Amino acid sequence: MNARPRRSGPPVGSAAPELVESGFTLENADAPFLHDGLNLADIAHVLDLRRRGIIPEAAARDLQRVLLEVHGTDAAHFPYDPALGEPYNSREHFFVERLGDVAGWLHAGRPRREAARIALRLYVRRQLLDLVDEVAAFAREATDLADRHVATLMPDQTYLQQAQPSTFGHYVLSFAYPALRDGQRLLDALGWVNRSPGGAGCVNGTRLLDDRSFIAAALGFDDVIEHTRDAMWQIDGLIHVLATAASLLSTLSKLAEDLEIWSSSEFDFVDLDDGYTRASILMPQKRNPYALSIVRGASGVVIGRLTGFLAVAKSPSARSDNLIFAYGEVPRALDLSTRVTRLMGGVVRTLHVNAGRMAQELDAGYTQATDLCEHIVQTCGVDYRSAYVVVGRTVREASRRGVPGRAITGEMLDQVALAETGRTWGLSGRDLTEVLDPAAIVASRTGTGGAAPPAVRAMVAKCRQQARELEDTVLGRRQDLDEATALLLERARELAGTGVRS
Amino acid sequence: MNARPRRSGPPVGSAAPELVESGFTLENADAPFLHDGLNLADIAHVLDLRRRGIIPEAAARDLQRVLLEVHGTDAAHFPYDPALGEPYNSREHFFVERLGDVAGWLHAGRPRREAARIALRLYVRRQLLDLVDEVAAFAREATDLADRHVATLMPDQTYLQQAQPSTFGHYVLSFAYPALRDGQRLLDALGWVNRSPGGAGCVNGTRLLDDRSFIAAALGFDDVIEHTRDAMWQIDGLIHVLATAASLLSTLSKLAEDLEIWSSSEFDFVDLDDGYTRASILMPQKRNPYALSIVRGASGVVIGRLTGFLAVAKSPSARSDNLIFAYGEVPRALDLSTRVTRLMGGVVRTLHVNAGRMAQELDAGYTQATDLCEHIVQTCGVDYRSAYVVVGRTVREASRRGVPGRAITGEMLDQVALAETGRTWGLSGRDLTEVLDPAAIVASRTGTGGAAPPAVRAMVAKCRQQARELEDTVLGRRQDLDEATALLLERARELAGTGVRS
Amino acid sequence: MNARPRRSGPPVGSAAPELVESGFTLENADAPFLHDGLNLADIAHVLDLRRRGIIPEAAARDLQRVLLEVHGTDAAHFPYDPALGEPYNSREHFFVERLGDVAGWLHAGRPRREAARIALRLYVRRQLLDLVDEVAAFAREATDLADRHVATLMPDQTYLQQAQPSTFGHYVLSFAYPALRDGQRLLDALGWVNRSPGGAGCVNGTRLLDDRSFIAAALGFDDVIEHTRDAMWQIDGLIHVLATAASLLSTLSKLAEDLEIWSSSEFDFVDLDDGYTRASILMPQKRNPYALSIVRGASGVVIGRLTGFLAVAKSPSARSDNLIFAYGEVPRALDLSTRVTRLMGGVVRTLHVNAGRMAQELDAGYTQATDLCEHIVQTCGVDYRSAYVVVGRTVREASRRGVPGRAITGEMLDQVALAETGRTWGLSGRDLTEVLDPAAIVASRTGTGGAAPPAVRAMVAKCRQQARELEDTVLGRRQDLDEATALLLERARELAGTGVRS
Amino acid sequence: MNARPRRSGPPVGSAAPELVESGFTLENADAPFLHDGLNLADIAHVLDLRRRGIIPEAAARDLQRVLLEVHGTDAAHFPYDPALGEPYNSREHFFVERLGDVAGWLHAGRPRREAARIALRLYVRRQLLDLVDEVAAFAREATDLADRHVATLMPDQTYLQQAQPSTFGHYVLSFAYPALRDGQRLLDALGWVNRSPGGAGCVNGTRLLDDRSFIAAALGFDDVIEHTRDAMWQIDGLIHVLATAASLLSTLSKLAEDLEIWSSSEFDFVDLDDGYTRASILMPQKRNPYALSIVRGASGVVIGRLTGFLAVAKSPSARSDNLIFAYGEVPRALDLSTRVTRLMGGVVRTLHVNAGRMAQELDAGYTQATDLCEHIVQTCGVDYRSAYVVVGRTVREASRRGVPGRAITGEMLDQVALAETGRTWGLSGRDLTEVLDPAAIVASRTGTGGAAPPAVRAMVAKCRQQARELEDTVLGRRQDLDEATALLLERARELAGTGVRS
Repeated sequence: MNARPRRSGPPVGSAAPELVESGFTLENADAPFLHDGLNLADIAHVLDLRRRGIIPEAAARDLQRVLLEVHGTDAAHFPYDPALGEPYNSREHFFVERLGDVAGWLHAGRPRREAARIALRLYVRRQLLDLVDEVAAFAREATDLADRHVATLMPDQTYLQQAQPSTFGHYVLSFAYPALRDGQRLLDALGWVNRSPGGAGCVNGTRLLDDRSFIAAALGFDDVIEHTRDAMWQIDGLIHVLATAASLLSTLSKLAEDLEIWSSSEFDFVDLDDGYTRASILMPQKRNPYALSIVRGASGVVIGRLTGFLAVAKSPSARSDNLIFAYGEVPRALDLSTRVTRLMGGVVRTLHVNAGRMAQELDAGYTQATDLCEHIVQTCGVDYRSAYVVVGRTVREASRRGVPGRAITGEMLDQVALAETGRTWGLSGRDLTEVLDPAAIVASRTGTGGAAPPAVRAMVAKCRQQARELEDTVLGRRQDLDEATALLLERARELAGTGVRS
Repeated sequence: MNARPRRSGPPVGSAAPELVESGFTLENADAPFLHDGLNLADIAHVLDLRRRGIIPEAAARDLQRVLLEVHGTDAAHFPYDPALGEPYNSREHFFVERLGDVAGWLHAGRPRREAARIALRLYVRRQLLDLVDEVAAFAREATDLADRHVATLMPDQTYLQQAQPSTFGHYVLSFAYPALRDGQRLLDALGWVNRSPGGAGCVNGTRLLDDRSFIAAALGFDDVIEHTRDAMWQIDGLIHVLATAASLLSTLSKLAEDLEIWSSSEFDFVDLDDGYTRASILMPQKRNPYALSIVRGASGVVIGRLTGFLAVAKSPSARSDNLIFAYGEVPRALDLSTRVTRLMGGVVRTLHVNAGRMAQELDAGYTQATDLCEHIVQTCGVDYRSAYVVVGRTVREASRRGVPGRAITGEMLDQVALAETGRTWGLSGRDLTEVLDPAAIVASRTGTGGAAPPAVRAMVAKCRQQARELEDTVLGRRQDLDEATALLLERARELAGTGVRS
Repeated sequence: MNARPRRSGPPVGSAAPELVESGFTLENADAPFLHDGLNLADIAHVLDLRRRGIIPEAAARDLQRVLLEVHGTDAAHFPYDPALGEPYNSREHFFVERLGDVAGWLHAGRPRREAARIALRLYVRRQLLDLVDEVAAFAREATDLADRHVATLMPDQTYLQQAQPSTFGHYVLSFAYPALRDGQRLLDALGWVNRSPGGAGCVNGTRLLDDRSFIAAALGFDDVIEHTRDAMWQIDGLIHVLATAASLLSTLSKLAEDLEIWSSSEFDFVDLDDGYTRASILMPQKRNPYALSIVRGASGVVIGRLTGFLAVAKSPSARSDNLIFAYGEVPRALDLSTRVTRLMGGVVRTLHVNAGRMAQELDAGYTQATDLCEHIVQTCGVDYRSAYVVVGRTVREASRRGVPGRAITGEMLDQVALAETGRTWGLSGRDLTEVLDPAAIVASRTGTGGAAPPAVRAMVAKCRQQARELEDTVLGRRQDLDEATALLLERARELAGTGVRS
Repeated sequence: MNARPRRSGPPVGSAAPELVESGFTLENADAPFLHDGLNLADIAHVLDLRRRGIIPEAAARDLQRVLLEVHGTDAAHFPYDPALGEPYNSREHFFVERLGDVAGWLHAGRPRREAARIALRLYVRRQLLDLVDEVAAFAREATDLADRHVATLMPDQTYLQQAQPSTFGHYVLSFAYPALRDGQRLLDALGWVNRSPGGAGCVNGTRLLDDRSFIAAALGFDDVIEHTRDAMWQIDGLIHVLATAASLLSTLSKLAEDLEIWSSSEFDFVDLDDGYTRASILMPQKRNPYALSIVRGASGVVIGRLTGFLAVAKSPSARSDNLIFAYGEVPRALDLSTRVTRLMGGVVRTLHVNAGRMAQELDAGYTQATDLCEHIVQTCGVDYRSAYVVVGRTVREASRRGVPGRAITGEMLDQVALAETGRTWGLSGRDLTEVLDPAAIVASRTGTGGAAPPAVRAMVAKCRQQARELEDTVLGRRQDLDEATALLLERARELAGTGVRS
């Protein structure tokens, strides 16, 4: 049997309905994310083609006119139609309907893929700035809350067991730090996102447009992505963006979990503002901290989005699915992350803190035990382990009798020391009030990053500063992008003969 | 400082805008999946309340009338509005607007959550049936393709290295088997999905509606979920549904990867029908097997959906986010799975198989080597390992000289045997044609499940039978559900006084 | 330039050190899981070869002797050595050292892959039985705990907000149900695992051993996997095993999260037995519920193992990595799951339940609100929504004044009803003691699956029965496997001439 | 019923066997990763305690002596025993056995957790340097390979369909870029890893050691982590490390997938060196590209490790499982990543490239089509779309007749142009040799990052420079760490009185 000759050349006939209902429908659902960017990419491309004399002047003008019209049209009103293929096909169909063969100039020197790649980057760079803005706002709210509660005593916990006396301010500030770090990482990722794949051709460059800097500058990119094949297919930056979003939401989810536990009636350490709760339809007594569920759930969802993207990317190189699925998955994940970060900012801003309950639990517990050991080590000349054993047994017995940590006496300790070590430690009669006072303990944590109010206030100042720097950077980047876009549109209008104001 | 008394009772005032734009917007985006089920759940609930004399007759009638009206309204046209809360709140708002206080009867004995839980199950059970139907269709197409190619010789591969002579029929049938298994698993999962949480109350049951079987029967459920807390919060079945979808798509993705490789011009073993490819906008020679990218990408996405759902479910028990996020994630994942399974059915149905190329490569290679070893073992009295060493070296030398496996001679083997073992094996002069003929080798695989045409034909018959059984089951289940729904609506219309036909 | 001829035939020379340190080291680390199964697979294979007259009698006897010796050697003492390749290569090396060319007979009619596939199934089937056993034990412990607490009142929660009066028995029983379902799913998965890929040859069957039932029976498999290519490469069952383990651990993790919250000093609903906690080295007051952290963490790890396996499987078909990585990942994930399920069984068995604290919180709260509404609906002729509004506001005001739910009076309700609806509802002077009594409310939940003690007792009986059935099935399956193995070894010893007892 | 008083104080009695077999066994399995770091952390801690006069001189000396002895003991030989608890407990047990109560001084001012946190960072920072080193080596090998093949023509592909003429050099260099980016990200992550949590106390700082810089400097950390609670519980950096490893392996896996396809006999573009392949035990003709399977599988595994870690971290804040599971998961994932990166470096270094086959396929195909269109656009005054339609149909017809792209003539094009557009384009008789010559096309890609040899050579130089910079940074960081460790040990020996050389 002979092998038949293999057919090359574009397919004939229309797409199978199953393909329209899967691939093309899926891609068109992402058109809203790409629409603006496709317009700007096309506008810049026409300017570039004309600049280099590749396209006739009249064609350039006519194309630019229609492109500006589409630029003024919302994605929802543009006739994207899966039956025509993916969004780019709908656009081509529209251009041909309006301009006939003239529309054909648009494809010179550029695959459809390049326009979509550019569009994704234009969208994601704005999303990154929005997200960083919300991160900074959350960090500011958390810092402000910390500032209001530098002196609000609470029992900090590990394993949800009371561990050490601390303050609510110190506690809540511990969420500003990782958020700010992820905010910075998102800005770093912008360095990957905001680079131009323009002029990469299919994979090996193009002979028509060998100066790739024009497109890059016109679209406000920081630079050109050097290697053309890399430029077309790189996805590492998207992995990092999603991973950072997952990391950020993991921080917010932890805070949400804590607050959910603490807003139980049994803890009653905090209470969400009404606007972040919701009523039960059945149970009239309930105010459910619904916002916290949303944050926690979103965190799980974004973990899945990252994983899914990595699984999609587990393919040979230069496979379209890597990016086709990124067009929707990445913007949606970032959008969810932004909304949820904003939500958590609101929760924190309006949170009611029940200092009385925290103090009550601190008073009833034994968080002084570590400091008591250290006091013994420093004054009785015994090693830490021995002090630990004696204090541990003393606490065990006190708890059995309902005696709180504050009321532990030197006599109780000496009695246990005698039983454990065969001698007393001279603690009887000593005034342990200061040693056992949670406020005094907190006040002793004056080292870097400790819970003592001055240490927390110093951190509050730093976090505010960092949040402000993030916001300033976002502001500056946004202005640059706005200016680049304004300039691009101005040139396009000039060419189109539509933008000249008298 | 004293602890302030904790507030109980429903929140006052409206939801914070950040909450509307996150949680409520997110939940309303899932309303299309729940709309029909919420209608049916409400309709059945009113029938139940009335049956038990809990609700006044007039209220029941008025409620039922409005419910039937909403049942006739598409989700897209119902005024779901995130500003009002999640979809159930929009519905309540609508009912109150139409009926005033009478609307309030709807909530007796049932939390909002129960209606949504029921609605999800009503939606997912239909999706499962649809997906099983597509699985059966895919398996049938793959089986039909196998049937057409029981005698189409090809080199089967491991590590993408030619391994053994086989047939395309045997190859492609190996995808029907796992698909059918996952089809059966999806049907099994229906046993979990199609059980009623109705009457579970909040978590502990309800005093108003202690007979839970009415709702179950009215809505076509197979049975009641016994434990009421389990009934409200169980998610294990959803994990299994998503995992099975991920498994199914993993099978399809493997086939897609294979076909992509094989439809390269270098392999040229298969060619997709035009309707499943797409043109490049830039490169006029290209026919890209786009459908395969969609299948592979969807497989990655669904892995992420499963992971994300598991991450969402990593929470304490009885947390709303577990289900809130399921309302959208599960239906969307199943919808994608169904579309992609249908797509792959189409790809397989219309696939062009290039038997000539396969034969060519088989002829040029050395897939006979194993059978040659076995022949030597059986006729020369040497062990397999020794035969392997000699055949291996013979192949190595033949390949260096461009001699294909079919042309290996006894002399060549004896020469190597002499070098390796110090003696010849008496192979010189022997006619190895039959031993080295791929077709003869395939014909020898007559054991259960082997590649010999009769063995493949036997499997084809079994797979067809299994596909048919899946389809019959789906058909039967659909009819049952349709009848239950028709009966429910009939009763509702009767009560509403709107359904009496003259 | 001309293409050089492609080399075929086995590689010459030794493996690169980087390969030894990656692939071969990795595979040899999994040898302990495969060792026993490889032995049994080899033993059965030799019996089969001899039965069919393919192997000389003496070779069969010698091979069998060495195989029995290896069978008696622990994996840790067998010279597996990455420098020789993967475990199968070390075995071959060992056999050749002991038997010379005779060792070569072992490879007739069977790729190395087949032995490893069999070995994995032999290991995993035992693991599944072990895991199901632990699942049954956990379910039994949870059921016993529920039985001891059918009358222990507690406030059940949603969003961690008090929702309804319930019992600890009803609560904890809600974890037995999903565990039992996953136990059943694991048994179902055994139907996939315990089938024989034996005799599948490379992918297309083998001419030497066309009756595949001998190996299947000898190794205690339920049946043969029909299609030979499917037999070699199927992984769907492993996905389901891992997904079920992830589902099971998700149930256990939820319980662990709950118990961690409840064993805080603020809740103090439960206390872990000392053996499941651990001390802090620094803080002498602490008893950390360490076991719960392990359960929760393991749940996350297993989610990752499932995801990782799905990502590995996202490849073309017939790729060795799919299984190579399964050899270690699946056994390790199942082992972790089994240990953690056993751990949670112990936690539940020894759990201290603080009924007094639960009652205290129930008394202080407003979980009666729903039943109060229902009482009003049933006795005052108002709709549920109206009752809800009035009760909700009453609760809000009561909570502000520190009046618990039990002390709400008809006067309070009428006053709010007047304010909200313009009229009183005749509740003043009515005795609401019974309506507001949590115990009475719980007693009213007599419907299927409700919290009333008789309903819970009925479920306790059913769960015990199901746990017993799982255990019986495990016992039966284990006996079958033991008998098959004993018979196989007996035949092998007979052949080897080593097993004849006087 | 009254609530019983809650017990505080350390647990009494030994751990439950289920806990030993799960949590403690699991933690001890990770001891090899932490052993060295725990030693150094303890050594530095004793120096710090002594420096501040907290610990008696003799105790400091004795502790330091034993610590130095343990430092000289391999983890495998230290008596870590799960029955004693986690590794820290085994160490404590050892110290008490050797020193009695004196051992107790070790715990002053520091929870066990802090030592483990430090140890993890000390281990991971070395791993990061090792991994970056391998990344640089891989990038260098890929760059060298690119350099050797700047002129090796090949058809680059999208969708595995021939797309454009390119070179193997350009192709393979596209993997160096993302690898180098991830190398840089790993170095950036070092900024997070190499910061000291020392002196953070439990969560709020410690009164004993308020100057946290001593420990930081002694252990070679770049700085102190400011906020003490953040210092103890932060995990965002670990997420980023794992995500970067997943991204890196995704790049390597793509290359592995490509090479696997290309080393099929059908493609035969490349051939792995023997040392990276493995033989089949059954099939003597096979040389399986086993190394590529390992790379691909490892990529999937690491995706799962990242996901699993994110799932573990989905918990409330300050939960030990977050870190307990990191102690093993992160080092193992990094170790696997390092081995696999080294493996891929070897594959690339020794890869055989079959330039003849690549040229053959390029000659047989139609990759000139885009440039032909562009030629027509530039010389015939038609738009790109029109040129595309005509060239596309020409290619389709040529392929049907077996005419390769190089042999397309102006006549053929004019004929199609006439049919499609009603006029010829004046191409007949024109010499298209240059236009259709793949080498000439490649030579035209002179723009930034294009495939033209000079452009590739420029990139080769840059990549080499970047790889060298990474290596230099690693070298510098390693020296700093070595010096810090040497200094620490010197001081410790001095104190112990064991290090004084005569």
